[in-house]
Amino acid sequence: MAAPTYDVVGIGNAIVDVLAQAGDDFIAAEKLAKGTMALIDEARAHALYGRMGPGIEASGGSAANTIAGVASLGGKSAYIGKVAGDLLGRVFAHDLRAAGVHYVTPPLEGGPATARCLILVTPDAQRTMNTFLGASVEFQPGDIDRALVADAQVTYLEGYLFDRPLAKAAFRQAGEIAHHAQRKVSLTLSDPFCVDRHRADFRDLIRGHVDILFANEAEICSLYQTKNFYEAAAAVRAEAEIAVLTRSEKGAVVITAQHEVEVPAAPVAKVVDTTGAGDLFASGFLYGFTRGKDMAHCAKLGALCAAEIISHFGARPETKLGELAAKAGLA
Amino acid sequence: MAAPTYDVVGIGNAIVDVLAQAGDDFIAAEKLAKGTMALIDEARAHALYGRMGPGIEASGGSAANTIAGVASLGGKSAYIGKVAGDLLGRVFAHDLRAAGVHYVTPPLEGGPATARCLILVTPDAQRTMNTFLGASVEFQPGDIDRALVADAQVTYLEGYLFDRPLAKAAFRQAGEIAHHAQRKVSLTLSDPFCVDRHRADFRDLIRGHVDILFANEAEICSLYQTKNFYEAAAAVRAEAEIAVLTRSEKGAVVITAQHEVEVPAAPVAKVVDTTGAGDLFASGFLYGFTRGKDMAHCAKLGALCAAEIISHFGARPETKLGELAAKAGLA
Repeated sequence: MAAPTYDVVGIGNAIVDVLAQAGDDFIAAEKLAKGTMALIDEARAHALYGRMGPGIEASGGSAANTIAGVASLGGKSAYIGKVAGDLLGRVFAHDLRAAGVHYVTPPLEGGPATARCLILVTPDAQRTMNTFLGASVEFQPGDIDRALVADAQVTYLEGYLFDRPLAKAAFRQAGEIAHHAQRKVSLTLSDPFCVDRHRADFRDLIRGHVDILFANEAEICSLYQTKNFYEAAAAVRAEAEIAVLTRSEKGAVVITAQHEVEVPAAPVAKVVDTTGAGDLFASGFLYGFTRGKDMAHCAKLGALCAAEIISHFGARPETKLGELAAKAGLA
Repeated sequence: MAAPTYDVVGIGNAIVDVLAQAGDDFIAAEKLAKGTMALIDEARAHALYGRMGPGIEASGGSAANTIAGVASLGGKSAYIGKVAGDLLGRVFAHDLRAAGVHYVTPPLEGGPATARCLILVTPDAQRTMNTFLGASVEFQPGDIDRALVADAQVTYLEGYLFDRPLAKAAFRQAGEIAHHAQRKVSLTLSDPFCVDRHRADFRDLIRGHVDILFANEAEICSLYQTKNFYEAAAAVRAEAEIAVLTRSEKGAVVITAQHEVEVPAAPVAKVVDTTGAGDLFASGFLYGFTRGKDMAHCAKLGALCAAEIISHFGARPETKLGELAAKAGLA
């Protein structure tokens, strides 16, 4: 087997974020569930945008954030995801390529606009997301670049994309291609409500195709329908080769058949915006994994990257993560 | 004379910023003059964007930043400036209105796209700007909302707009309307190269129409063709009723016929991006001025607002400036 060209290829919803500050009263008035992601249609996106505060636009998309983070650490990464041929689509493509990511998925012709996510950041730095999926869900098995998936050490799948049957089929196909080429498959559960909508399919996918599973506390508890984190952690050990469970300020736990490794959260002077915390944790972990580092090292890299991203607005790194890692003795 | 509805109305180039980090090597390779603003055409904008790093998009425009700052301090403010009917134009209008600014200039139909400014932020936090003026310079006397100008305590003019003859005419007209209504007129010089291109016209405008002049060290020295700041400061005293001269980390000097007041720069934990420092200094100063505060108080408010804006990326406040001012005992 030839060495793969890419460390990680990500597959996900190609989204541009619109970030604005909001008070808890706004979250309540708009009947939003704080800290989660809701899918909205275009009309609702317009109406909500009209009532939101001043925003900044920044490329996002969970897996795309992760992949940009891998590149910032010095890894070779690629991305597969669908934008439209509009201004936001060009912005999304520019930002990924300028970050050093290989990205060649052709834009959608004549369909909906590029996806956007209206993100409300409350004074507690929590983010509440409202996603108009637009072009990003016109994703189907034909969009999987088979050669690219076979040529990456890890294929990283974003659970959010799981909301459409064709995307689910594309995921299973990507998993099969990767495993056929003796590569690893990784999945992030993305959101407790998303897990709730597709629990059985997620569990099938994990058992059949996933080597490295990422989830936060709410997501893993939703997957196993328990309120007890330790019960969920015990359940996942039987189903995933490696489970990386993130717990915000309580740090993270990595669970394998043999081991359980806990690492603390990395210190942050001021938490400004938690958007992308999980995505960047995955960047660090996967970068370490593709460099053959042990689980504790991988998780510490994850915590370091998550700490950088929550120290400012937006979900793409403002600091070269490779330099941060070197300074922390984790290169 | 009835009390005016608005504290400040700003007139300027309506621009969306694209901010990206860049090394000094990039600035050199692109032959850019660090810390200044260059006008570029659409082709150059595309080419430069293609070579820039990942960006964030945020509404900008010098006078618009100032006006958004006045609103964030709790003032009543309005803006006049031209966008196109495209996505960036809608983003610009949303961000101003959501900040509480009265903004009703109709978008340009069938002309160039909304203006954008490619801003490269170097590791020393300096910003180097490359502006494609697009729709913003299709500005002419007919776009001046006479009733609005007459109904604002201060009309604030952005020197950048001075690059076109029709915009110059619009400025003089705005000055006349304001003075006829017994209001004040303020001008910012914007950029040393802009001053160099239009020195004689700027000096005419200042002598004939301007009550409060804003300039930084490079701009005031360019206006009076001297390398000596104190010479320039002496020269401006004879020509402007109030001159507010900002000097980055050295603070600011306010010069009137009777007084000279110096205030230090406000402390900043970490200077991230100096974009908007001068614009937000003007916000604080003008807000204090419209509240009848003395020159030292106005300048301290200016320094406080400038310190907020340079602590993060982008030129619109991330913190409610009115709350910052209250905490600092400057409300």
